[in-house]
Amino acid sequence: MDQRLSFLTLVVADVEASSRFYVDGLGWTPELHVAGEVLMLRIGERLILSLWARDAAEHEIGPVMSGGTPPVTLAHNLATEAEVDAVIAEAREAGAEIVAEPRAREWGGYSGYFADPDGYRWEIACNPGPIGESVLPG
Amino acid sequence: MDQRLSFLTLVVADVEASSRFYVDGLGWTPELHVAGEVLMLRIGERLILSLWARDAAEHEIGPVMSGGTPPVTLAHNLATEAEVDAVIAEAREAGAEIVAEPRAREWGGYSGYFADPDGYRWEIACNPGPIGESVLPG
Repeated sequence: MDQRLSFLTLVVADVEASSRFYVDGLGWTPELHVAGEVLMLRIGERLILSLWARDAAEHEIGPVMSGGTPPVTLAHNLATEAEVDAVIAEAREAGAEIVAEPRAREWGGYSGYFADPDGYRWEIACNPGPIGESVLPG
Repeated sequence: MDQRLSFLTLVVADVEASSRFYVDGLGWTPELHVAGEVLMLRIGERLILSLWARDAAEHEIGPVMSGGTPPVTLAHNLATEAEVDAVIAEAREAGAEIVAEPRAREWGGYSGYFADPDGYRWEIACNPGPIGESVLPG
């Protein structure tokens, strides 16, 4: 099994609320939108973020956890701290709850977190060093 | 905010158990491994999967859900059904629980699921059509 991710699927309560946030709020372009069922957004050259309505997801994979902070975070890395501040400001403008303002982190970088409509945390990060730099746009 | 994911972080109970599965079992190459704390694996050209110990993660993001199937799935797409069967067999060999044997899916493809040591579902999928084909290795 090669080391690669093709789709990241998040179970959501309301696909239309997801669309209002990601498409209307952040201005992202949908790859596919089946109202009330699924919203797909490209988040990498060969990677799709799929926001899947709970009913449809549970029909395929069975009951999933609910009622708290999901045990997963998504990070969007940037080259500078100023860009981190700007994206957190943009997310706030788009209606996201900023769950942690940007600050220096114990692991050596600088980041803040916002929550999407289902509480999924996006970390907006500047992570100096080889691994952090390896994920920046070329 | 550009449409791109840099890191996908999953909260895990035991980083060494994750390493036994992903590194020893699946044969993946770690990008970074801090014993008991974090294991990072490259899963895209500019994308890292980070398996982060619960204590460390909760210190940064607060308490997260536990005790069930996580509300997120990771998919690894392949061009043919035969390749899906082969990767599911490989995951079984590596000690994964096969939570759904490969079969035709209502959305038009063919997939099976295994669970990693923390119950995170990897869907091994053949998804014919433009979006599914767009995520295959070039």
